[in-house]
Amino acid sequence: MKKTAEETLADASAWWDTAIIDIHPGKIAIRGYPIEELIGNVGFAQMIWLMLRGELPSRAQADLLEAALVPGVDHGPHAPSIAISRMAVTCGLPINGAMASAINVLDDIHGGAGQQCMELYREIDAAAGASGDLAATATAIIRGRIDSGEKIVPGFGHRFHPIDPRTAPLFALVARAQAAGVVSGRWAAIGHAVEAAISAIKKRHIPMNIDGITAVIFCELGFEPELGRGLFILSRSVGILAHAWEQKQRGRRIMGPMPREIPFRYSGPALRAVPVAPSA
Amino acid sequence: MKKTAEETLADASAWWDTAIIDIHPGKIAIRGYPIEELIGNVGFAQMIWLMLRGELPSRAQADLLEAALVPGVDHGPHAPSIAISRMAVTCGLPINGAMASAINVLDDIHGGAGQQCMELYREIDAAAGASGDLAATATAIIRGRIDSGEKIVPGFGHRFHPIDPRTAPLFALVARAQAAGVVSGRWAAIGHAVEAAISAIKKRHIPMNIDGITAVIFCELGFEPELGRGLFILSRSVGILAHAWEQKQRGRRIMGPMPREIPFRYSGPALRAVPVAPSA
Amino acid sequence: MKKTAEETLADASAWWDTAIIDIHPGKIAIRGYPIEELIGNVGFAQMIWLMLRGELPSRAQADLLEAALVPGVDHGPHAPSIAISRMAVTCGLPINGAMASAINVLDDIHGGAGQQCMELYREIDAAAGASGDLAATATAIIRGRIDSGEKIVPGFGHRFHPIDPRTAPLFALVARAQAAGVVSGRWAAIGHAVEAAISAIKKRHIPMNIDGITAVIFCELGFEPELGRGLFILSRSVGILAHAWEQKQRGRRIMGPMPREIPFRYSGPALRAVPVAPSA
Amino acid sequence: MKKTAEETLADASAWWDTAIIDIHPGKIAIRGYPIEELIGNVGFAQMIWLMLRGELPSRAQADLLEAALVPGVDHGPHAPSIAISRMAVTCGLPINGAMASAINVLDDIHGGAGQQCMELYREIDAAAGASGDLAATATAIIRGRIDSGEKIVPGFGHRFHPIDPRTAPLFALVARAQAAGVVSGRWAAIGHAVEAAISAIKKRHIPMNIDGITAVIFCELGFEPELGRGLFILSRSVGILAHAWEQKQRGRRIMGPMPREIPFRYSGPALRAVPVAPSA
Repeated sequence: MKKTAEETLADASAWWDTAIIDIHPGKIAIRGYPIEELIGNVGFAQMIWLMLRGELPSRAQADLLEAALVPGVDHGPHAPSIAISRMAVTCGLPINGAMASAINVLDDIHGGAGQQCMELYREIDAAAGASGDLAATATAIIRGRIDSGEKIVPGFGHRFHPIDPRTAPLFALVARAQAAGVVSGRWAAIGHAVEAAISAIKKRHIPMNIDGITAVIFCELGFEPELGRGLFILSRSVGILAHAWEQKQRGRRIMGPMPREIPFRYSGPALRAVPVAPSA
Repeated sequence: MKKTAEETLADASAWWDTAIIDIHPGKIAIRGYPIEELIGNVGFAQMIWLMLRGELPSRAQADLLEAALVPGVDHGPHAPSIAISRMAVTCGLPINGAMASAINVLDDIHGGAGQQCMELYREIDAAAGASGDLAATATAIIRGRIDSGEKIVPGFGHRFHPIDPRTAPLFALVARAQAAGVVSGRWAAIGHAVEAAISAIKKRHIPMNIDGITAVIFCELGFEPELGRGLFILSRSVGILAHAWEQKQRGRRIMGPMPREIPFRYSGPALRAVPVAPSA
Repeated sequence: MKKTAEETLADASAWWDTAIIDIHPGKIAIRGYPIEELIGNVGFAQMIWLMLRGELPSRAQADLLEAALVPGVDHGPHAPSIAISRMAVTCGLPINGAMASAINVLDDIHGGAGQQCMELYREIDAAAGASGDLAATATAIIRGRIDSGEKIVPGFGHRFHPIDPRTAPLFALVARAQAAGVVSGRWAAIGHAVEAAISAIKKRHIPMNIDGITAVIFCELGFEPELGRGLFILSRSVGILAHAWEQKQRGRRIMGPMPREIPFRYSGPALRAVPVAPSA
Repeated sequence: MKKTAEETLADASAWWDTAIIDIHPGKIAIRGYPIEELIGNVGFAQMIWLMLRGELPSRAQADLLEAALVPGVDHGPHAPSIAISRMAVTCGLPINGAMASAINVLDDIHGGAGQQCMELYREIDAAAGASGDLAATATAIIRGRIDSGEKIVPGFGHRFHPIDPRTAPLFALVARAQAAGVVSGRWAAIGHAVEAAISAIKKRHIPMNIDGITAVIFCELGFEPELGRGLFILSRSVGILAHAWEQKQRGRRIMGPMPREIPFRYSGPALRAVPVAPSA
């Protein structure tokens, strides 16, 4: 039966249904809170939490989230996300465009390790159960992954840093939050169990890296794994913006990945003639 | 042992190794062919083929590729790729930016059906073997997919078109190319077998759509599945550009998805006060 | 004279020169500060400031910056940036891709009003000089712009909100910061002068909007106009992420801008036959 | 007066008005032409023309357009667009994402020279008038630009190629098309006039490059300057795709712009301690 015009309009409204924000002329409410009450009363980290989770966090929860957003902002121009941001502005892009091209590459491999690590922690949590043995469970799961050919355990080891300098200070904050009853500490324990398991299996110390410890924190705070990637993106966006801005001030045009005096290597066919009738 | 400066420079050259293009001052060669010989002697479809495959196609192969690039250019503003392109220019983006935001969404669901269909065809091809029974193999594989919960067979059925008007004319071109010995026809046969299998299993006609027939053509021409997605993107880029341009000429600013007079529906918490000490 | 290999390597290092971050195995320093000292000691807003400006702000400066990042996070699905983010995930994009397509459109028109408003304030500041008359200067400059055909003064008026509910509470924070000696108040005065000038010229109240008041704050805090756009992007990224995540949880596939039952209007040529020899 | 539901629905349809495509179940028409008649009867270049211009070109016009799309496909990994595409896939992006990040940077500086050159040609055309002196007009306009500080005339000179090998063969095709009455030759004459003017003013030969000659062709064929950029993007997209695909097959993960053994240079503040109370 054909819908009435009113029903079709209702469908169109429902098409863009959201539980995040309500807007009327002169009025904006986020998750039910009037925007004018939020301004000045909640910090940016609390606002991030409210937007993603639907409720306001305590200040202690927000503080831990905020601390976890600090260290991921930048890892230098050798990171593709940073290099792309810098190259983009030399092509004429404004800040938004440079950020878009760069944020786009924070995909499974360059931006997904934290999310994958959270999924690993949750797999161990579920397998161990409330009373289970985390060490044995972590060992079994890690061994299974390595046996099935996985070379990298997300969140552990770093190809550049023998010890990731960002891990210990964040771990200290988790311990303090646990002592204050802000978090349970279960996910820190799982993280430790994974580190021990990998190191035992590989017979050398494979320390937790920035992705592994932020995965601990985001799990302790109750975030879904995919939001772990989202939070990392919010963090790295700051570095992407800072590098775009620094590069822009230098005024260079069309900066490629290396100086032209270092030629790229060509490994294709030798020079040859186009066939007389290529279109035959 | 530490590398010499010369060795490090060689590493840097190798970092950007490519078999596609070689460039020296005043000289450019693509896959070994001097650019000045290619210009005017090969068409755009031949150039696409050369870039992606490494060798020049025959004119007949290029003609079939070219025909397959025509119908995917556009499917109207209800397609997210087109809608995004149009909205983007009203936000101030130039053509390149609008195209980037739009092309980006040609991902697994909106742009990947052709690739997935090519993978299905190849699975059937491999399972059937050279002398095998395509009908039985297709039926077994399709039934297995449906039994395991897959609702959609990529390349077949269309939520808008009962019969996709783009399929039959492309099939006619494949038949003609097969008659002329340009293609083997094996992939057309596989496509037909899949269509028959789905329709028999579902007990209603589920016709091949544009993704299914372009998958046939790209398989007949020897392209890898992932390049099937790439070729669709090259095709749809034309529509994305055309709509960006049409919208730009109209001069509107910040066009959202619907007129503001159709409000979006809010389904979140009712209005509430921010707690007195939200930061406690 | 040809460079030595060592000189060429030095050029390559200089190619990616940055004053933002230094990295060595096991060591990361941001603007000279060891990352392990920053973690837990500086908040996210301070970190944003440090990355963009090179020095740490006071807590009071950071608090004002933080407050200005809160209200811009979201303006609902009618905003192209939000609509694009939601459509993108229904096409199969992960969080990073949806954010990229959306952030990209925060260009001159959809994301540049704050930057343009900062440039306007700076123009007035420079023209008025230290002892000048802000009211007269603002009036002259605004009148000049309107006379030369500009329809919109960036940062003032809103097509949806008669009074932008985000302006007053932010202004109160600026006043408090001025009273505490954190900011000078000059830019708030300029903002007020612009508002009065426009309203006098247009003969109706055109109130300052969110872009106008955040422009005041970013100017008070010493940010360059282009960074005003950057800060807005960091803020809006939160809403873009939240909407991507909400939409993703709903599992819809290929969501266009409106339900298909509302057809788009076609205004092109009537149906016609392709000429017999279109290629002649 | 409040609109009726029917009027609001009509507004929603008009919101997405287009003159490009019409779609009904089982029927697709592009610019009025049924898609099933276009398939196999028009080539890809004709389809590009039809989409952008509204009418089908002659085969000769399409051939010239097609020739101009060939040489811009690639300029090697030193071009940011190509480097970004290759880095993107090593971060985990699929083809569409890599292409989006790369196409995005084809902005004013990296992708806009052709468009800017077309605008220059049109300025000269308009200033010279039908019977005017192209040489004198070109000289006056170029001299004016150089005198006002512009260092680069878009479309002329190349920082890598002393002579751009793509220019002469394209010019030959324009000459042939002019001889056949396909194009007027006016824009080729303007291009020559510009080349002569720059070289005379600079007192050394500054030859027309690929952007200058494609600008001639696109002007001869009647395209708007902004579409010149669009056509270049369609062309370069092929190279962006080919490099993404080549890089993907190599399976590398997170490839930055240079090997890590070449460190980036740090030019910021020396190591320093975070102030005891940074948040005071």
